[in-house]
Amino acid sequence: MSNASWLQIPRDSPFSLANIPFGIISTAALADPRPAVAIGDYALDLFAFSSAGGFSKLSSFSSHIDVFTKPTLNDFAALGRPVHREVRGYLQDIFRDSTPYPEILKTNEDLKGKALVPLKDVTNHLPMKIGDYTDFYAGLNHAFNVGVLFRGPDNALQPNYKHLPVGYHGRASSVIVSGQPVRRPNGQILANPAATPKVPIFSPCKKLDIELELAVFVGKGNKLGEPIPIDQAEDHLFGVVLMNDWSARDIQAWEYVPLGPFNAKNFATSITPWVVLMDALEPFRSTGLAAEEGLDNLLPYLREKRAENVYDMQLQFDLKPANSSCTSTVAKTNAKNLLYSFAQMLTHHSVTGCNMNTGDLLGSGTISGKETGTLGSLLENTQGGKQPMKLSDGSERVFLEDGDEVTLKGMCGEEGSYVGFGNCTATILPAHVIN
Amino acid sequence: MSNASWLQIPRDSPFSLANIPFGIISTAALADPRPAVAIGDYALDLFAFSSAGGFSKLSSFSSHIDVFTKPTLNDFAALGRPVHREVRGYLQDIFRDSTPYPEILKTNEDLKGKALVPLKDVTNHLPMKIGDYTDFYAGLNHAFNVGVLFRGPDNALQPNYKHLPVGYHGRASSVIVSGQPVRRPNGQILANPAATPKVPIFSPCKKLDIELELAVFVGKGNKLGEPIPIDQAEDHLFGVVLMNDWSARDIQAWEYVPLGPFNAKNFATSITPWVVLMDALEPFRSTGLAAEEGLDNLLPYLREKRAENVYDMQLQFDLKPANSSCTSTVAKTNAKNLLYSFAQMLTHHSVTGCNMNTGDLLGSGTISGKETGTLGSLLENTQGGKQPMKLSDGSERVFLEDGDEVTLKGMCGEEGSYVGFGNCTATILPAHVIN
Repeated sequence: MSNASWLQIPRDSPFSLANIPFGIISTAALADPRPAVAIGDYALDLFAFSSAGGFSKLSSFSSHIDVFTKPTLNDFAALGRPVHREVRGYLQDIFRDSTPYPEILKTNEDLKGKALVPLKDVTNHLPMKIGDYTDFYAGLNHAFNVGVLFRGPDNALQPNYKHLPVGYHGRASSVIVSGQPVRRPNGQILANPAATPKVPIFSPCKKLDIELELAVFVGKGNKLGEPIPIDQAEDHLFGVVLMNDWSARDIQAWEYVPLGPFNAKNFATSITPWVVLMDALEPFRSTGLAAEEGLDNLLPYLREKRAENVYDMQLQFDLKPANSSCTSTVAKTNAKNLLYSFAQMLTHHSVTGCNMNTGDLLGSGTISGKETGTLGSLLENTQGGKQPMKLSDGSERVFLEDGDEVTLKGMCGEEGSYVGFGNCTATILPAHVIN
Repeated sequence: MSNASWLQIPRDSPFSLANIPFGIISTAALADPRPAVAIGDYALDLFAFSSAGGFSKLSSFSSHIDVFTKPTLNDFAALGRPVHREVRGYLQDIFRDSTPYPEILKTNEDLKGKALVPLKDVTNHLPMKIGDYTDFYAGLNHAFNVGVLFRGPDNALQPNYKHLPVGYHGRASSVIVSGQPVRRPNGQILANPAATPKVPIFSPCKKLDIELELAVFVGKGNKLGEPIPIDQAEDHLFGVVLMNDWSARDIQAWEYVPLGPFNAKNFATSITPWVVLMDALEPFRSTGLAAEEGLDNLLPYLREKRAENVYDMQLQFDLKPANSSCTSTVAKTNAKNLLYSFAQMLTHHSVTGCNMNTGDLLGSGTISGKETGTLGSLLENTQGGKQPMKLSDGSERVFLEDGDEVTLKGMCGEEGSYVGFGNCTATILPAHVIN
């Protein structure tokens, strides 16, 4: 079916008719946060659209339209993947040039005026109420690169790495939406890590870093004690966002033994406001690093039927230094650089019986390629902070400085039918002074 | 003031007039979960009590009584510590023999019939909607004992241990209330940890353990980016529960490098249903291990004015083996065995700017003494699983078996005026069979 729309959609928009991502918006005219989809340069306000009978041609959904009166997408996500598929397909039909229902929106100037809001006039909110947030470590190249820095190439990966998706529980409360600034954290760091005895100082983080990740929202959950089998896992996924897992490397180095990263991660995690549904990503399924690495020893509970378990998606990490108007692209990489799929992460997470709830967020771990120019963190780009990077305006960076603006981007497909996230952006604010 | 009550309170009750803990109950007559306090062998249904004008003599609270129409204590907790103090003091007055307001309840047979429910007829629910759950590791003896098992006595404690309260983000969704059974988790374990290469098997956990902990609920939160200073931290705490942080030691040993415990902990965490308010614990303040250890190097942001920053509280770990009617007391210890206070945990957690929300739960870490008979986990009691324990019915245990029933208890004070939690109990169900 043609992806041409009666709505003018810029050819470079991440929100083509092939996408239809869901989010939560408010506007100057109506401050209540409410669901919307992004299409081209517009948001379709689903509260306004459904209130005006926009879903009248989708009779199967009529008993559910109150989900679009809610301030989060949780109730919609909880309806399950067949419903998400139907609603997305219907909205594509509504916007299609050859729509079977032109009277709903295409020729309905009144509803267009009420429900189509220019994205520039929209305030984005967190799309989901997040119960628990878990971050995995499935970017094999990142895990290897970091392992080399800390332990050398022979022991870079831990023995468990190729048997299970390593992960840890993160902090849900500080997940924020793109555009919100990030304040540099204070904490305990070692002024001289080599000195003994090790005595920390209290200081603003001096090694503030980014981590380029994807993350998936859980749709339908499971009951405590009832694991999600791998062949059902995809039906429990709602959609994907880009994520920046901000990291205080110096705080982490001191605190993380023996129970893992804590304050180094809990001050902020930024995500894109628009959730790209699993079905929008289906055409871009690809084999990932598991195919390359041959995970022959994978235990049966993690084995998937399809080898194409990750996505062929271009990812980008841009940095605009403080007081500069010049943006540098630090890295370009691809989401194929993952060893485990979101389905595997979900199944592993729940195999103990852990109950996953609608709105839970699972991060992929940092996605990096193998070479310079493909690395999804500054730690890797600067060899652990030892090699400053040259940016395009001539300035240098080891880690982030106050006023720096970081932007992550991600996009699948071709111009004219891109399936993307829009930007995941934040500017660094200086640390508070604490005695 | 006398702690005598017109209500007959058994002298060994943990819910004396000196306590007045808050929880959420339902009953056969009314299935809606609602707030209550425990006193003696009764729950006072605060929905029924407040609906009938029970708070009419506490005029400062009149605009807030809708908090007792809610299915969790979050709205009450969010009102802040001065309000908790006032409401608890008022309820003590209501139940006092010499109550200034006998007409409210003491001589009001109708309201007594409606609002006083025998505890045996009550179903307990989770007291709070938990946003994020964090577990600390502040039980110095436990950290030392476990460190000796893994690294020997010379390197038992990590260099950071006496500088900050080590902690990690836990799983909020699987926090359950005492009485709910716990299903043994499945997961990846090493059949032979010494063999190389390390290849895991999929198996029911064979080293299922308990961890005896206290945990505190956050009352008032803080905004993202705005840390809670140590001298304000206590005002942000709501109340304390007993907690069993169930642990799958074999799953943990294989998975935890380098990002910490994950599936080993996420299948269940049990807490007592009754939240003992901070003010009820005030009379039992005590110095803890910090006084003994002399934390002279503690950075200023963690320094408290009062040395009495933990509680003199008797703790107990009981085990009733499957198919036995005989309960063994495995350990008796004291909550003074903590190196850091809840206030220090909260301040450290938020010093990065991490936002704490009402209902967040912070665990203390396992509380152990130094000798046999005072150890708050089976791992410590059995020397890492090498020395079976003899129980009082003649049976032996290394780790928990299916059908075992674990009960934790905790109590401050003297008979007749105990301030305690009631039991934190769960029985182990067999693992599901998964291929």
